[in-house]
Amino acid sequence: MTTENPMQLGMVGLGRMGANLVRRLMRDGHSCVAYDVNPTAVDDLAKEGATGASSLQDFVEKLEQPRTVWLMLPAAIVDSTLDQLVPLLEPGDTVIDGGNSYYRDDITRAQRLVTENLHYVDCGTSGGVWGLDRGYCLMIGGETEVVSRLDPIFKTIAPGKGSAEPTPGRTSTDGTAPDGYLHCGPSGAGHFVKMVHNGVEYGMMAAIAEGLSIIKHADAGKTDRTVDAETTPLRDPWAYQYDINVGEVAEVWRRGSVVGSWLVDLIADAFARSPELDDFSGRVSDSGEGRWTVLAAVDEGVPAPVITASLYERFESRQLGEFTDQILSAMRSEFGGHAEKK
Amino acid sequence: MTTENPMQLGMVGLGRMGANLVRRLMRDGHSCVAYDVNPTAVDDLAKEGATGASSLQDFVEKLEQPRTVWLMLPAAIVDSTLDQLVPLLEPGDTVIDGGNSYYRDDITRAQRLVTENLHYVDCGTSGGVWGLDRGYCLMIGGETEVVSRLDPIFKTIAPGKGSAEPTPGRTSTDGTAPDGYLHCGPSGAGHFVKMVHNGVEYGMMAAIAEGLSIIKHADAGKTDRTVDAETTPLRDPWAYQYDINVGEVAEVWRRGSVVGSWLVDLIADAFARSPELDDFSGRVSDSGEGRWTVLAAVDEGVPAPVITASLYERFESRQLGEFTDQILSAMRSEFGGHAEKK
Amino acid sequence: MTTENPMQLGMVGLGRMGANLVRRLMRDGHSCVAYDVNPTAVDDLAKEGATGASSLQDFVEKLEQPRTVWLMLPAAIVDSTLDQLVPLLEPGDTVIDGGNSYYRDDITRAQRLVTENLHYVDCGTSGGVWGLDRGYCLMIGGETEVVSRLDPIFKTIAPGKGSAEPTPGRTSTDGTAPDGYLHCGPSGAGHFVKMVHNGVEYGMMAAIAEGLSIIKHADAGKTDRTVDAETTPLRDPWAYQYDINVGEVAEVWRRGSVVGSWLVDLIADAFARSPELDDFSGRVSDSGEGRWTVLAAVDEGVPAPVITASLYERFESRQLGEFTDQILSAMRSEFGGHAEKK
Amino acid sequence: MTTENPMQLGMVGLGRMGANLVRRLMRDGHSCVAYDVNPTAVDDLAKEGATGASSLQDFVEKLEQPRTVWLMLPAAIVDSTLDQLVPLLEPGDTVIDGGNSYYRDDITRAQRLVTENLHYVDCGTSGGVWGLDRGYCLMIGGETEVVSRLDPIFKTIAPGKGSAEPTPGRTSTDGTAPDGYLHCGPSGAGHFVKMVHNGVEYGMMAAIAEGLSIIKHADAGKTDRTVDAETTPLRDPWAYQYDINVGEVAEVWRRGSVVGSWLVDLIADAFARSPELDDFSGRVSDSGEGRWTVLAAVDEGVPAPVITASLYERFESRQLGEFTDQILSAMRSEFGGHAEKK
Repeated sequence: MTTENPMQLGMVGLGRMGANLVRRLMRDGHSCVAYDVNPTAVDDLAKEGATGASSLQDFVEKLEQPRTVWLMLPAAIVDSTLDQLVPLLEPGDTVIDGGNSYYRDDITRAQRLVTENLHYVDCGTSGGVWGLDRGYCLMIGGETEVVSRLDPIFKTIAPGKGSAEPTPGRTSTDGTAPDGYLHCGPSGAGHFVKMVHNGVEYGMMAAIAEGLSIIKHADAGKTDRTVDAETTPLRDPWAYQYDINVGEVAEVWRRGSVVGSWLVDLIADAFARSPELDDFSGRVSDSGEGRWTVLAAVDEGVPAPVITASLYERFESRQLGEFTDQILSAMRSEFGGHAEKK
Repeated sequence: MTTENPMQLGMVGLGRMGANLVRRLMRDGHSCVAYDVNPTAVDDLAKEGATGASSLQDFVEKLEQPRTVWLMLPAAIVDSTLDQLVPLLEPGDTVIDGGNSYYRDDITRAQRLVTENLHYVDCGTSGGVWGLDRGYCLMIGGETEVVSRLDPIFKTIAPGKGSAEPTPGRTSTDGTAPDGYLHCGPSGAGHFVKMVHNGVEYGMMAAIAEGLSIIKHADAGKTDRTVDAETTPLRDPWAYQYDINVGEVAEVWRRGSVVGSWLVDLIADAFARSPELDDFSGRVSDSGEGRWTVLAAVDEGVPAPVITASLYERFESRQLGEFTDQILSAMRSEFGGHAEKK
Repeated sequence: MTTENPMQLGMVGLGRMGANLVRRLMRDGHSCVAYDVNPTAVDDLAKEGATGASSLQDFVEKLEQPRTVWLMLPAAIVDSTLDQLVPLLEPGDTVIDGGNSYYRDDITRAQRLVTENLHYVDCGTSGGVWGLDRGYCLMIGGETEVVSRLDPIFKTIAPGKGSAEPTPGRTSTDGTAPDGYLHCGPSGAGHFVKMVHNGVEYGMMAAIAEGLSIIKHADAGKTDRTVDAETTPLRDPWAYQYDINVGEVAEVWRRGSVVGSWLVDLIADAFARSPELDDFSGRVSDSGEGRWTVLAAVDEGVPAPVITASLYERFESRQLGEFTDQILSAMRSEFGGHAEKK
Repeated sequence: MTTENPMQLGMVGLGRMGANLVRRLMRDGHSCVAYDVNPTAVDDLAKEGATGASSLQDFVEKLEQPRTVWLMLPAAIVDSTLDQLVPLLEPGDTVIDGGNSYYRDDITRAQRLVTENLHYVDCGTSGGVWGLDRGYCLMIGGETEVVSRLDPIFKTIAPGKGSAEPTPGRTSTDGTAPDGYLHCGPSGAGHFVKMVHNGVEYGMMAAIAEGLSIIKHADAGKTDRTVDAETTPLRDPWAYQYDINVGEVAEVWRRGSVVGSWLVDLIADAFARSPELDDFSGRVSDSGEGRWTVLAAVDEGVPAPVITASLYERFESRQLGEFTDQILSAMRSEFGGHAEKK
């Protein structure tokens, strides 16, 4: 496939995501200028056809006006990078933040850049390590004309129509959503939608994980529970006598079932590689979007018990509830003389 | 496609699911005897090639021994149907319950049938109204030899390998999970896995629905909130000024994103047909499996906050928390003199 | 009882809380200047012994230096009142915000007032309509010296040692907590603790309300459930045949039980007055502190599933999940052809 | 105090609860026959005035007809004890189960005993180690005449009217609830109400514990969070700079606040004894009633998100969600190449 409208794009940040975006763009006929604080990352991409830049100054000089700069950076260093980059840019240039910024920062940054006659586009990018081949789902915020001008870039990065069956009830032929990218609204709208996307992701992941765990423990009746006042007896041990292969369950759910999803595909793969998931201890990080989704739900007054439960489940996986639990034990000791079981 | 091992199967219950199973089996070269209390349903299928039966007696007589009888009935009438059917069957015959029975009933029924030298297979069947063409995901419980003998039937009903990409990390070539059907264990194991499957389905649905609702309400800052002591002011109205097209978000999430799933496909379709979902008032039924999944989690001692929250969310959609809420209002009135807002 | 250290305090805002604080202070020998935008409220308190003020200017003039001004106002008008009040005050004067401000606003306001050589104290005040007689629990933030100087005021307002049995394990004789007031830390600490107090209140209220509702519905087995695929049958109707008097349960829990609490006292009272709680429709307001508590939990990374669930339960009581529910219904219709039950 | 109607009661099971019940009964003028499999426990109570029994046979012989036998045993051995006891009893005798049996067992047992012309009473007993002095809150199920006959026993065990202020709105002078005991309904009703009582207890405890934990972590802004893509940055560290004494907060909440409760009294005591709760690691047991409350809520269709969350929080405190968490980590690794943080 080759784009009909080749453009030039500059990429700052050549980690896994940034580098693969450059590769996907070049494959489709766009030209890229690539910069990273790590020169090896630059060299690697230069060997693959990108124009390497040795400094931000050099990077900006190698871009034609109006420039298009895509930042693919940890959220924590976007602002400091902008502090260096903005003075080098010229009116009409555009900065795209493709990382995981908080959408409120987008609003602030866009207001700041507009005073310099620069454009700012926020672009939530989903696809993980698979995006190079599958394409990335793009959720975009910013001025309509600017987003329109960048259409060939987004079209190339996105998965494209062929990546899923057409939606049967869709009669409208307008819009880019069926291509896998969407202009969601003004500044921040892209990262807002991406933020909620990740909140949904937390919830879906937790639903699948809880379910598979319940299946795993369908053998609960085979083990004798301690008989003491601190332990709930299992009333119907005969009903929990199953040894079910959880990995095979994930595999079978991939086809024809209502829960069929990419996440089920992935966990089937993980079980295929490691049937006991021995490589994982169960400390689950959360990187911001889940928390922000909950904050938005609370601000808006929208009940979000499922997404919130999935966030707290991650907190619990890292023992962040320990003090709460100590208090509970202390109360039980106080009123009932219950000692903790070791 | 045509099966290499045509078999004969008798279907009792010709609702949407039962009739489509018969059609899918016949398409693939199996022969079917069809019975329903509603003679029109029998006639319709007979026109399509099935052997119609006018009574259970007639139905049993038209099946060759050892008979294979598939029940596709509401859970509430399975036992009464078995009461009529079992005396008509002969040693070696097999009954498959393909509906949504509680897995504990399967254990009881299998114990009952074995005393008559009959076999009992429970088969959780997922696929909904789409299964005729997509195939059905089958989760099967029962004796190994019996399930093996029925393999050609299951293979035809299931979606088959081609319905999804192979799992990359899967080196094993054993098993039927990649074809979309799985023998999960002894009696009840099939419906156990199907039960949890539906619990997962509740959780995934809720995660998607909550997320899209948070996106829908991203315009919360555009409305003035009442200013009184009973209403939380929105501190940052500037951060909730988006009018985002929720249907287009669902559509874009179908491609390349981590939340890509059949459920997202379906809700994109629903929005394409009805952008405001006007046909739905929001009373969400629950039909048993979600509740049973929670009961299993509690019995096993597995925390399932996400799946449980999704169940309670359905209860709330039907105002089942009303008395709880009245108590809360009464308490607030008692300690603070707060009157309810109308 | 009479205070040993009578002081003068000015109260702005003579609603239920403000007026009762003035009464409680005067009863104990303090003198009060009272102001409200509503002159009738001023007149009423003047008749009871307060010095009435006809304007903020008049109010400030009637206070001796260094002035102590207590604001008892809706959170939404504190800042505008400060805009008028601050220019009238003089170095050394102190403003106490006794309402339900967000603790972050306290930090900002204290920083603003200190530039004028004014002091700012935040004071979370719990006690509702009962505080006049029971005393108010006070959670205080601000500079140590300022809070110390105001000790006679806080001591009078608080319930005092006699209002509860001494804590048996408490050997320390330091501190004011056993009197019912506590200097929690610097600016904002008082409202932070009060905020979380209300979050705890939400959770306790919900636990009680859910429990009583489960008891109320212990008759669930007496009603036939509809038999259809959309309705979960009740497997053990014999186990839900109780008609339990919920109000009497609340009354009995008041004595000797682990759940004994003021909230149980109050709901017992509500049931005594109205056994069916007919006056309440179940729309439960939330006024900010519950939401802010959840935001703090998420920021801190502390799992707070119970408090959060109680917040969302209030949202649900006001049907704020309606769009979520419509989406769920739409999905069920898509995959299963399920129509909503009316 | 002395009862006006002294009765004789036999106690089987002289653990902490059983022995203290005997003591409280004897103090008030009742006579008690005491039996335990441990003869030392019998001897100890005999020294305090009880009639000791050396065997169940001896125990039954020492009781006058109609006998009243109170079982205070772990739920797991009630049925085996009844197997031995029932043949020794005679028509008209009554057995009271004062332990924590599942209410459904009460229904079964009552049906069994009635065939022997024996009476069965279930009596949920709350009060913990404090009941000897405070009295026990009693929730009673069984036949009305039998429960009435035992009234002097229940009256003595319960806390009595003086233990709390009268409920202001209560005009009815009927009933025993204001004395701290209540006949809730037929067999099982007592343990049903006690079961839910404990569910409410879980929820209240969790609300308090979560709140105090949020206050404890109000210093979150003082610690630098790791800066990486796996860690959510804290946006407003200035707002989390408090070192708040959690024990003093619990102490101050005891007086005048809406959350005032026996549980707050107890946690204030625990903090007074051990400010860091060093004796507790945070493994919180659950002993059945919480689980059963959730099962009842699900069966009844009553949303109980708060009580359920408090149950799952206890599961999490014992790392029962570990497999779930491993699955989540595995998924994150699959789609994003995220490694777990150690």
